[in-house]
Amino acid sequence: MKLVFAVIHDEDGHKVMDELNKNGFSVTKLCSTGGFLRAGNTTLLTGVDEDKVNDVIAIIEKKSKSRKQVINSSMPPNGMNGMFMPYPVEVVVGGATVFVLDVERFEKV
Amino acid sequence: MKLVFAVIHDEDGHKVMDELNKNGFSVTKLCSTGGFLRAGNTTLLTGVDEDKVNDVIAIIEKKSKSRKQVINSSMPPNGMNGMFMPYPVEVVVGGATVFVLDVERFEKV
Amino acid sequence: MKLVFAVIHDEDGHKVMDELNKNGFSVTKLCSTGGFLRAGNTTLLTGVDEDKVNDVIAIIEKKSKSRKQVINSSMPPNGMNGMFMPYPVEVVVGGATVFVLDVERFEKV
Ligand code: NI
Ligand code: NI
Ligand code: NI
Repeated sequence: MKLVFAVIHDEDGHKVMDELNKNGFSVTKLCSTGGFLRAGNTTLLTGVDEDKVNDVIAIIEKKSKSRKQVINSSMPPNGMNGMFMPYPVEVVVGGATVFVLDVERFEKV
Repeated sequence: MKLVFAVIHDEDGHKVMDELNKNGFSVTKLCSTGGFLRAGNTTLLTGVDEDKVNDVIAIIEKKSKSRKQVINSSMPPNGMNGMFMPYPVEVVVGGATVFVLDVERFEKV
Repeated sequence: MKLVFAVIHDEDGHKVMDELNKNGFSVTKLCSTGGFLRAGNTTLLTGVDEDKVNDVIAIIEKKSKSRKQVINSSMPPNGMNGMFMPYPVEVVVGGATVFVLDVERFEKV
């Protein structure tokens, strides 16, 4: 038995949990914050048989992997009309950090 | 030194913590959600000497073990009066999932 | 790779995270409560190379170690004027409990 800790972005938390549940993995969501960005993170905790660890990591990767996203930023106003000009900016979102720990003993009581 | 992670139902969290504290175990409660039911879960974290792990698991079991509970559900209205009919339903509540991990190093600073 | 769990007092959480971040360690903050005092605790989770564990523990210690603090308490009113008398009391605050666990597998996806 292994214990998988995955730190993922909040926006991906729901998708990752749903997909893990659909595949029969029971997941606990610990609320968390932090990482370098100080943005909202979600920590997922799932106990899993050794031979299923790859499956769990593949699901986490599929549902949270870092990708580029275009958001609208805005230029400071210039010229006489003083209007902000929206323009697209590419940012990286998502990504997960996964730690697999060995479980010495596992009990359901 | 071992680190015990116990995922229990919210309704049992307080009882389990109280009993662990009464027996001299220091416990940290991580707020959490999830599991298959998506109901509120509590994750408890307690560092414990190897020879006390059985005691900790026994306390968790005693205070959270799954049991049947009768709740009142209600039948959809039928017949002319359109009233909901309350009737008793037996559900399983409680239960805990316990993971014991080895601690390589333990410090109180 | 090691996973460091540090249970610290809420009041120290921000300082410890800032200092770890400044030194290049990515930290996740799990909200938590409990311990003997039932006061607000913060649990920090940080994945770190084996040869940096001492640095992490030194930072946690520097920014959270238990110290005496003088707070103002107040005497119950006595005498004819019925006023509460503020007086200084020394209490111990801070301190951290640190668990270092071995990580079998570490992935950034
Ligand atoms: Ni983010
Ligand atoms: Ni439940
Ligand atoms: Ni405190």
